[in-house]
Order: sequence, then structure tokens, then C-alpha cells
Amino acid sequence: VGIAMGSDSDLPVMAVASETLDRFGIAHETRIVSAHRTPAHMTDYARAASSRGLRAIIAGAGGSAHLPGMLASETHLPVVGVAIGSDTANAVGSQIQMPGGKPLAFMGSGTAGAMNAALFVVRILALSDPDLAQACVRFDERLADEVLAKDDELRSLGARRYLDAK
Amino acid sequence: VGIAMGSDSDLPVMAVASETLDRFGIAHETRIVSAHRTPAHMTDYARAASSRGLRAIIAGAGGSAHLPGMLASETHLPVVGVAIGSDTANAVGSQIQMPGGKPLAFMGSGTAGAMNAALFVVRILALSDPDLAQACVRFDERLADEVLAKDDELRSLGARRYLDAK
Amino acid sequence: VGIAMGSDSDLPVMAVASETLDRFGIAHETRIVSAHRTPAHMTDYARAASSRGLRAIIAGAGGSAHLPGMLASETHLPVVGVAIGSDTANAVGSQIQMPGGKPLAFMGSGTAGAMNAALFVVRILALSDPDLAQACVRFDERLADEVLAKDDELRSLGARRYLDAK
Amino acid sequence: VGIAMGSDSDLPVMAVASETLDRFGIAHETRIVSAHRTPAHMTDYARAASSRGLRAIIAGAGGSAHLPGMLASETHLPVVGVAIGSDTANAVGSQIQMPGGKPLAFMGSGTAGAMNAALFVVRILALSDPDLAQACVRFDERLADEVLAKDDELRSLGARRYLDAK
Amino acid sequence: VGIAMGSDSDLPVMAVASETLDRFGIAHETRIVSAHRTPAHMTDYARAASSRGLRAIIAGAGGSAHLPGMLASETHLPVVGVAIGSDTANAVGSQIQMPGGKPLAFMGSGTAGAMNAALFVVRILALSDPDLAQACVRFDERLADEVLAKDDELRSLGARRYLDAK
Amino acid sequence: VGIAMGSDSDLPVMAVASETLDRFGIAHETRIVSAHRTPAHMTDYARAASSRGLRAIIAGAGGSAHLPGMLASETHLPVVGVAIGSDTANAVGSQIQMPGGKPLAFMGSGTAGAMNAALFVVRILALSDPDLAQACVRFDERLADEVLAKDDELRSLGARRYLDAK
Amino acid sequence: VGIAMGSDSDLPVMAVASETLDRFGIAHETRIVSAHRTPAHMTDYARAASSRGLRAIIAGAGGSAHLPGMLASETHLPVVGVAIGSDTANAVGSQIQMPGGKPLAFMGSGTAGAMNAALFVVRILALSDPDLAQACVRFDERLADEVLAKDDELRSLGARRYLDAK
Amino acid sequence: VGIAMGSDSDLPVMAVASETLDRFGIAHETRIVSAHRTPAHMTDYARAASSRGLRAIIAGAGGSAHLPGMLASETHLPVVGVAIGSDTANAVGSQIQMPGGKPLAFMGSGTAGAMNAALFVVRILALSDPDLAQACVRFDERLADEVLAKDDELRSLGARRYLDAK
Repeated sequence: VGIAMGSDSDLPVMAVASETLDRFGIAHETRIVSAHRTPAHMTDYARAASSRGLRAIIAGAGGSAHLPGMLASETHLPVVGVAIGSDTANAVGSQIQMPGGKPLAFMGSGTAGAMNAALFVVRILALSDPDLAQACVRFDERLADEVLAKDDELRSLGARRYLDAK
Repeated sequence: VGIAMGSDSDLPVMAVASETLDRFGIAHETRIVSAHRTPAHMTDYARAASSRGLRAIIAGAGGSAHLPGMLASETHLPVVGVAIGSDTANAVGSQIQMPGGKPLAFMGSGTAGAMNAALFVVRILALSDPDLAQACVRFDERLADEVLAKDDELRSLGARRYLDAK
Repeated sequence: VGIAMGSDSDLPVMAVASETLDRFGIAHETRIVSAHRTPAHMTDYARAASSRGLRAIIAGAGGSAHLPGMLASETHLPVVGVAIGSDTANAVGSQIQMPGGKPLAFMGSGTAGAMNAALFVVRILALSDPDLAQACVRFDERLADEVLAKDDELRSLGARRYLDAK
Repeated sequence: VGIAMGSDSDLPVMAVASETLDRFGIAHETRIVSAHRTPAHMTDYARAASSRGLRAIIAGAGGSAHLPGMLASETHLPVVGVAIGSDTANAVGSQIQMPGGKPLAFMGSGTAGAMNAALFVVRILALSDPDLAQACVRFDERLADEVLAKDDELRSLGARRYLDAK
Repeated sequence: VGIAMGSDSDLPVMAVASETLDRFGIAHETRIVSAHRTPAHMTDYARAASSRGLRAIIAGAGGSAHLPGMLASETHLPVVGVAIGSDTANAVGSQIQMPGGKPLAFMGSGTAGAMNAALFVVRILALSDPDLAQACVRFDERLADEVLAKDDELRSLGARRYLDAK
Repeated sequence: VGIAMGSDSDLPVMAVASETLDRFGIAHETRIVSAHRTPAHMTDYARAASSRGLRAIIAGAGGSAHLPGMLASETHLPVVGVAIGSDTANAVGSQIQMPGGKPLAFMGSGTAGAMNAALFVVRILALSDPDLAQACVRFDERLADEVLAKDDELRSLGARRYLDAK
Repeated sequence: VGIAMGSDSDLPVMAVASETLDRFGIAHETRIVSAHRTPAHMTDYARAASSRGLRAIIAGAGGSAHLPGMLASETHLPVVGVAIGSDTANAVGSQIQMPGGKPLAFMGSGTAGAMNAALFVVRILALSDPDLAQACVRFDERLADEVLAKDDELRSLGARRYLDAK
Repeated sequence: VGIAMGSDSDLPVMAVASETLDRFGIAHETRIVSAHRTPAHMTDYARAASSRGLRAIIAGAGGSAHLPGMLASETHLPVVGVAIGSDTANAVGSQIQMPGGKPLAFMGSGTAGAMNAALFVVRILALSDPDLAQACVRFDERLADEVLAKDDELRSLGARRYLDAK
């Protein structure tokens, strides 16, 4: 799996995708590939991705955010996009209206989007890896258990004492 | 592959996803599954999807558009969402901010979104099917050839005569 | 009355609903019920709500905010929604365009929304409880009296001295 | 139940609320009450609503849409708002940020909003009317049955033949 | 001139309107009049405004912001509205789409809006007061002179030294 | 009173302002003054307005909509702005955030905005014309009477028969 | 000058840019160059543009609209962007937040944007062509004369008769 | 080149344009020219710009942001606009919908917009200055080299260690 971003200022967000892939034991690389500043580098990266053995690309970008869509145009691998920045409105807009023929999977903004981009790739890889599929099930069970435990605690403490206990 | 939508009024858009999968020879079912009107049916559908042999679910919805996100919460298969309707602002908003842990791949609105949702699933399936990967390459080449042919024609005719020739 | 929220990070806002119900002496429970992380728990909660004796559900959620709408789909009790978070645009969008047939009462965002959600439930319960109806009247009179007292003070002090006195 | 609207141009939408109440056999009146053109009439209407025996008010308005919020300020009955018009952005904005203390239940826009406003009032009245509660259950079962029947038909016909059959 | 606002939390902004009127020597009162919390008080205030000798009303409000529009509906004086708060989108929306027949002059948001509301009232009063008209001219000349002086300074210092000099 | 617009394509909307002034017997001129295409003409118009005897200017514009704000910068008369066009978002944005010191009264969009712009000017002129003030009262009474008559009719006919009678 | 667009569906809008350049006698080519469907073609086009003798590129695109920004990244010529389509919000967003270092001049949407893109290029070329500069002056004088003639006509006819005469 | 802004509060942003021009050795002036507070000064500035030898104007403004568009209306030089302020929505809207005939090149918001405005002017001047064209190439090569160096570092360190090293 390749994790690509337009600038190292995007790294605090995209590192969450890297950590999530680590959690599932999935090998990946983390790269800076700017659609605007290094268009030739981006093209080379996208075209070689499949033959280099990548199975998917997670791309994060802010501002005009052309990187995810341009990668999706230059490779046949699944490309998953994440919007980054303090004001992500334009970065979302650039990713949710690709022309028919060039699919880009938009995953959301910020760290939740980066985590989900990684989890979505895990779901893709799990289609041909039963162990990974089991890991997905366990991951979701753990998420649910955490919520249920908090529900029990809140139910018994009530809102005020629960908040005070934090 | 399952194609699910909240209402048969969504079918003119979602049929494009079905036709696109047909074009690549991918078996699929087309279903009406309403998150709000048939929540139990939706839950059953999502939970059985993997054991029934589905590899991915494409979900289209308009208005508050909870179907794609709820399906993504109830299965470990990749779920791809499409926004439908004359005013898709809320349907987009419901699909692009899933909580960390439950990934939903948003693909865009209307028929371009439906086509791309199908193509994205093709890209996923092509990861383990070299023939499908070749078909993806040919599909993109055909897209490019069409553009190049039109570019040649426009270049030689000029804007006015090209428009008149239509 | 049930107060449900998707995550304990929503509790500082939703606790205002709990405090408001307390103020009117209305028994209630405060619960964490995630539509995405614990969909089965959510379904169980919604379906049992009426037989457990709840008369209404107040639901708060941020992000894609499917909880209020999904609860409204699984119960016949009145469900009242609140949007939470630093950017509530998507959380509002998810709650204000439910399909015909499944009503969700959207109450606003943040602590004002949470307070009003509780007050709205009080108004519902007051339809069959004359004492509660009287309490509503007194609550509004107190609100009005506070405004009138401040108006008197501002009128006599003028803007500058009123601000300095704070 | 009172159904109030700011202008008779809102009636094609608000008539859906009236028809929905008829369907459940709930007595109601349909009124034109303009917050801006007849403020005194509006005040009289809101203040007398409870003593005239109304149990809830459904209010529809377009443009700046002050009617629902002003009614909610002048009565202790539950007030449910609907946004009307070709461009409802401002009409929604006027209804989803009431100050803490004065709850207004926003139900959505257009005919789906009007239908849901009526259904929400039915849910309120059903709290003290078991027959009405049963009618709500049957209404939802019918909604679900319609979806399930269409799902069966679509499943067996496929997208193309289903569309052709329409 | 009356300056009305919905809450004393609006006063830091609306005090700018008061100070601006002071600067032109125009008598005025500053009032808290809540459309939602004290609707009867608001109605009384609006109806008596003309006979009490007010020539115009400046009204500021946040959130759903019904005060300016409701005042404009209950008096024949010119009413000028200001949007207040950290997020003024809804407060603007409530003020810029009044129905035909009930004019409300929207002036903008925050302290610039409050200052301009006062200046606009000054322009109205200046129509029948030549001294006030002269004061308007001098006010604008001073504004222009300040800009011209800064332009001279910036022109001679250049951007960097001008910024350092601050 | 001057009614100025940027293009004669704005005239169908702005003619409503002219007709409204006619209704109150107020002399006015209707002019095409483009901020962008005839900036010198606009400047001349604004600067001479007061000495030519105008008491107020109503300005309508679409698109980037600089005309109302520029007129407000070049004269001390009250200037009232109207947004025109099929998509007025930018035309509104250009008019609701004037800098402190240069007030522009924004009145809304389309024909309702144009009518209200004229009515607002009538309210200004009525401050020094008791007959005009009486005409304002009568105008509002007629508006209210129309609503009350429709309310009576709707109340007696019910929604369905009222709609059928149209 | 090169005029590039992503699809021949953009041609009815972009033909206006071509006609405007024709009007000033400026040689140009009109091309279809898709950032997403023909990325290699786009790269070749951008890189060769300067050596082929182009002095500027006008690029129009709808949807995610990456073409203008990607061209601006691959050439040192001035690139001017136009947003096209029935809903241009995303196409605007993609063009107005380029990263520092890669300038793209956004010109607006639809035919007005296409005309202005051409006129802006004319202004650039006029910097080194006095005849063209004169043509710009005459073009603006004609624009102004048309407005002034209409103003005279409207002024003498009045709004109603002017409209009737159309 | 002229750099004009509406207020010295815009200078921290617009100084970036000045520094960028300095970097390329391009003579320029930095000016405060307010469309609203000094309209006559603005008109004089725009009309004299060409004869004073300016080749382009960069204009920054916030709020209603009429300066860039008004300059573009009063001169035949290329005018490039920048939006400034904490909330630039209205300042963008004022600049992206100029009427056909009066082109304004919008460059984006904040410091990235100011830098790009300067770079765009450099691209214009480079059309007739081969040394400047070479400088543009070198500037872009440096941008690319910086990205490539960071990509190498990130690739070898991985996300976590790269972040720790900052």
C-alpha cells in the first residue's frame, strides 16, 4: 500500500493512516508526491505503482487537492482520498465529483478520514486474506465493546458524575 | 457485488452501476433496501452479505442518506456510496464524515457517481483477477482514444464548425 | 425519557439535556448508543424503548450523525435530534431531510439545542400533565423576567456603564 | 392540531400535512397566519391555541420564515416547523438555531417535511392513545411491505426490465 | 433612535452603534428586547416606537435572529438589522429574505455592521438636518484622509519597513 | 428617488421598485448605471445625486454586484441594495459585508427585494411626511386584511377545497 | 493562445472564448485535453505549449475540474481557468486554492467567464502590442456607449414602456 | 507592478506579494487604495496606472472586496485579485463573477494567494523577458527539488521518525 501526500505539512494527519496499517500488519510506504510541484514525479509514481507491487494508494491533500484525483487517473489500482487542512471545503469539493470513468473513493477529512482510508484498504485486502478478515471482525468487536463499556458506566453514574470522573 | 438503494426512485441512477458491472461481466444483484423504512431488512442484508458471497456493496441514497453508512457499519465488506437526487447536498454530507473505525468510500453524485462506484469495485476485484485488470486498462484506453479523436476533430474543424456539426 | 448519544465526547453537550429534565423533575436515562460502532445495540435500544416505558428519545450526534434518524426509524416514540461538534454542517444535513414516513424532530446544535430538546420533550409530556404545563409557564415567565430586568438596567445605565459593570 | 402557514402559496405543500392527519383520523384546522403581515393575528392565534384545545401546531413558512419560531415563543404547545419554497436555505436557517429556552422542532422541507410534521404529531398524540399507537405501527409496516415488495420485484426483474416495466 | 438587541451578550457589538450615534450627537436609547423570550414586550416596544418619538430602530440579533424582522413587521419606522455571534450564517439568512411588504435593511455582521447601522440612520436623519449632512461629509473626509496618509507612509516606507514600524 | 441598475436585464426585477414608488405617488427616475462598464458615469451619478435633489438611491445588481456598494461610497444619501439574478449568492455576498464607515442597506433578492427597497425608502420619506406615514399604515392594513380574508376562506373550506377553488 | 477543455460538452461555453479572441484577431487553437481521461496527452500539451509558441492557455473544466490547475503546474505560461457546468461549486473550489508556487488565474463561470478569460489574455498580449491596447480601449468604450444609450432610453421611456418596447 | 490593498490591515498578507516580486527583481510599489473610503483616489490610481508605466496591478481586499473588480473596470492592464481576512467567503464571491467584458484574475486567499498573484505577474512579464522565463523555470525546479528531498527523507525515515525529527 502506498500512502501519498502533497506536502509534509499533511503528515500529522496521514501518519494516522500509517499507524492504522501497522496495527493490521500491512506493509506500506509513506511518500510526499505533489501534483502541482512535482507533476512528473507524481506521474511516475502512479504509473509504476502497480508493477512495484502496490495494491492500493491512499492520497491526502489540502487546498485545491488535485493529487488524489490525478493518481486515480494514472493507475488502475484503487485510490482512496483524504481531505486535509483547517478549511477543507475546497479539498472535499475537488474529490467528490470525478468524471465518469475515473473513480476516486473519498473517505472524509482529517484524522478520522485517514484512519478510515487505511481501514477501507484493509477491507479490500481482507477479501483475499481470511486472517485479515478475522482481524477486521475483532477490530469492530473491540470498537463495540468500548462503546458498550462506556454505556454501562454512564448508565450507572449518570451524566454529571461521569463527566466529573473524567 | 450487491447494488442497494433506498427507493426505486433511485433506480434510474443506480442502473448505471448495474450496466457498468455488466460491461465487465461481473455478476451482481440490484436491491431496494431502505435504512429508514426497512431497518431490519437492511440489517439482515448487510450481515448476510459476506456469507452470501458478495465481495462489495454499492449503496445509493438521497435526502438524509443513511443507507451507505449503515451498511458500512454492519458488514466488513468494502461499501461504496453514491448520492442521488435533485439536491444532493445533505446526501453528500451524510456520507463524507463517518466516524473513525467505520469506512465508507464516497464516489460522487448522480450517474457519474454510479458509474464510478461500479468501476471502483471493478478495480478492487481486478486486484485478484488479471483478466479484469486487462479489461480496466482497455477501458481507460478507449476513454482516452475517444478524447483524442475528438481533440483531432475539434482541432481541425475549429469551435464553430465542430458545434455546427453536432 | 432516554437521552442517547453516539460517543462520550458528546456528553458535555448532552448533559445539558439531562440537567434540563432534572429541573422539571422528569426521570430519564443517559446512554451511549453508537449507530455505527454498535448498530445491534442501537437497534435493541430503539425497539425496546417503548415497552421499557420511555415516552421520548433525545439523540445527539456529530459527523455523519445517523443515530437520531436511525432511532426514529426503529421506534414509534417521538425522537428529537441534536447536532454536536465543532463543525456541525454535516451533522445538521443528516437530520433535516428524513424521507417521508419517518419523522425526526431536529432541535438545533450544541448546548442550546440540547436544552431545547429537553424542553420540547417537557412540552410533549405537559400535554397530559397539568402540573408540568404550569411549570412550563413559570419557566417562560422567569426567562422573560430576566430579560426585562436586564432591559431596565441597560436602559438606565446605558451601554457603556452596563458593559463596565460586568 | 393546528396547521398554520404564512401564505396560501404554501398550501400545496402544507396540504400534505392535512391529508396525513386525515389518514389517522385526527381533527385539525388549516390556517393562514403571517408573522410579518399579521403579527397581531399570529400572537392571538398562538396565545389562544392551548385554551382552544389544540394539542400541537404545525407551522410552515418560506423566505425568512419567522412564523414557526414566533409561534414556539408564544405558546407552550409543541410546535413543529416545515421549510417551504424553491430555495429553502434561509427558511431552514431561521428554524434550526432557536435560542435556549424556546424549542422548535424542525421537520424538513417540502412535502416530505410536511408529511413528517404530521406523523410526528401523530407520534405525540399516540403516547396517550393506544389505538393511534397501533395505527402508527401499521403505517410503518405498510411502508416496509411496499419496500419489500419492490425489492422482490427488482431482484427478480433486474434493473433494466424493472425500469422498462414502469 | 432605538437600539434593540435580543440579549445582553449582544451588547459588546451593539455598543458600537451607540458610540457612533454619540459621535454625531444623536439621542438614542439602548434596549434588550427578545423576540423569543419577551414577545409581548417586543410587540409593545415596536408599536409604541413611533409615538414615543423614535425615528428609526437598529436591531441586532444572533442565532435564528427574528428580532429585526419582527420589529420591521410591527412598526412603520425604518428598521435596520445587524447579525451578531461567532457563526452568523443563520442570523444573516433570517434577515435577508423578508416577504414583499415588510422591508428590513440588513447592514452586515459584527462591529462593522453595528457601526454602519448607526451611520445609515445618520444618513436618514441628515435628509432633514443640514448640519448632520455636513457632519457626514466631514466624517467621510476624515476616513479618506486616514487612508491617504497611510498610503503616503506605505509608499515611502515600503511593505517591510511599514510593518516593522507598527 | 433614483433607481439604478447595472444592466437592462435587471429591469424586470427593478421595475417592481418603480411600480411600488408609483403606488405611493413618489417621483423617481429609473437608470442604467454600470459600476464596471461605465465607472465614470456611475461616479458622476452618485456625486450629483444629492444636489440633483434625490433623497435616496435604490440599486440593483447581479453577479459580483459592486454597484450598490460603490454608490454608497460616493454619496451621503441612504443607498438601498437589491440582489438580482438566477443565482444571487455572490450578489448577496458583495452587499452584506461593507467596511465600517460606508453603510449599504441590503434589502433582499428578486422582486420581493425590489418591492421592499421601495417600501423602505417610503418609510424614510414618511418620517417627514405625515400623509405618507398614513399611506404606510393603510398599505400594511390592506396586506393584513388580505391575509385575514384568505385565512377565513381556508378555515371554512379546508385545504383540499381551497386548493381546488384556485 | 491555446483554449483547452476537458470534454466537448464544455465547447458551447468555451467557444465564447474563441469568438472573443477572433474579435481581436488573435490566432489560437481550440483543444480537448482531459486531465483525467488523457493525463499523458495533457502533460505533453502543457510541456510543449511554450516551445510551440503559445503565449497563454485558457482552460475550462467542470466537476472536479483539475485541468486548469494541472496545466498551470506543467507550464510557465500564464494559465487562466473557467468553471463550466450546471452546478459549478466544486469546479470553482478546485481552482481558487492552488498551493503557493503554482498560480492559476480564475476568471469565473460560464460564458461570462469564458469571454473574460479571452479578454484577460488580450490584456496580457496588449502589454507588448500598442494596436491591441488601442483595441482594448475601443472595446471598453463600446461597452460603455451601449450602457449609456440604454440609460438614455430607459430614462426617457421609464421602466414600463422600456420593458414593453422589448 | 502596483500592489494595492484596501487597508493596512491587509498588509501582512500582501507583503508576501511584495517579497515574491523582490525575489525576481521586479520593481513595484505597495499602495493603500480603498474603493469605499477613497473612491476618487482609486479612480485616479487606476486611470493613471498605464501611463505611469505599471504593467499589472495586484489587488487584495477583504469583506465586500470591491477594490480588485473596480480597478479592473478602470484600467486595461491585467488586474489580479486576492481575498484577505479571517472569513473570505464574501471576498471570494465579490471577485469570481465579474460581468462579461471586465476581466479580473482571481488568485486565491491569504498568503498563498498573494504569493501566486506575484508569480502570475512574473509569468506575464516573462513572456517578453527570457531571463525572467529562466528564473521561473529555476523557481519551479527548486520547489520540486524541495519536495523530492522531503520525499526521500520521509521514505527512508517513515512517518513516525520523520515527525519526531521535526
